[in-house]
Amino acid sequence: MRQAMLEDEFRDFQYSVSMTTRKPRPGEVNGRDYYFVSKAEFEDNIKNDQMLEYARYVDNYYGTPLKYVNQTLDEGRDVLLEIEVNGARQVREKCPDGVFIFLTPPDLGELRQRIEKRGTDDEATIDKRMDKAAAEIKMMAHYDYAVVNDQVDLAVQRIEKIIESEHLRVDRVLDRYEKMIGAVK
Amino acid sequence: MRQAMLEDEFRDFQYSVSMTTRKPRPGEVNGRDYYFVSKAEFEDNIKNDQMLEYARYVDNYYGTPLKYVNQTLDEGRDVLLEIEVNGARQVREKCPDGVFIFLTPPDLGELRQRIEKRGTDDEATIDKRMDKAAAEIKMMAHYDYAVVNDQVDLAVQRIEKIIESEHLRVDRVLDRYEKMIGAVK
Repeated sequence: MRQAMLEDEFRDFQYSVSMTTRKPRPGEVNGRDYYFVSKAEFEDNIKNDQMLEYARYVDNYYGTPLKYVNQTLDEGRDVLLEIEVNGARQVREKCPDGVFIFLTPPDLGELRQRIEKRGTDDEATIDKRMDKAAAEIKMMAHYDYAVVNDQVDLAVQRIEKIIESEHLRVDRVLDRYEKMIGAVK
Repeated sequence: MRQAMLEDEFRDFQYSVSMTTRKPRPGEVNGRDYYFVSKAEFEDNIKNDQMLEYARYVDNYYGTPLKYVNQTLDEGRDVLLEIEVNGARQVREKCPDGVFIFLTPPDLGELRQRIEKRGTDDEATIDKRMDKAAAEIKMMAHYDYAVVNDQVDLAVQRIEKIIESEHLRVDRVLDRYEKMIGAVK
């Protein structure tokens, strides 16, 4: 849903397709949902520095192959990665000019009240859930922007503004202007 | 015009009113168009570090008094200063967390063609005008964002996006989130 809405707004960016060694589920299409590869192929990609980021969960690898990201960037389009914090850290190292947006849970106090009102969880479970949310928020410090994920359409608008605004940053456009000056002088 | 349009879009920011020692012109209102003060009063403000930025043109001072800027910021609203590059440099020193947006002339090559087509200026005059535009663009490196001032309504939209997006920067909101975590734990 979020993905569909964003793609509707931005025609000049593309979601990255992840690579995985897990088996495709019914209906999943290679190259659209994932690039489905063998363990040996994935490990070759790692060895040859062809993964922008990756992680291993249980027995499978998941990650972002560099090739398609670079292809899209070379076409002058933005690439969006929807990834976990450890993946983001790897991308930050390889792409220091990337833009890192952290999706935050809505207000924690409100979240607690909502769960308490529902009355299905005991206090210990709620505490654990709050601890998890708090730990997540602490990761925010490693990101550039924080977007509250309260309502999907609002979150989409905020991300849209960030992307468009980042395109106006001087350190991203100065080269172009300097060339323009050179061309008319 | 630009000012009116921006104020229409953003209800939670305020244009700063400058202070000057020049005499009010017919129709100008003290506190709306400028704060009209004596030379002695302006120099007192300078001496007491009460000017965010200032400059002297011919026989008059022009500048931004700190007092009203701080008042507006304390109310939780943004302050917009529309100032020259030297003023901006002074503000950057005093407010490193300010956001600096450079309004650029449209494409220089196009500008040159337009002037040449008009045929009212000789080549030397056009060269001089191009040099001036090029020199201005070089100042861009000291700013955070560059907004092309081609059409007022588009420029307004770009500035709007920058302001809203800057409010989502982690270094501006992290404190608030950390307090929130503290409050529920």
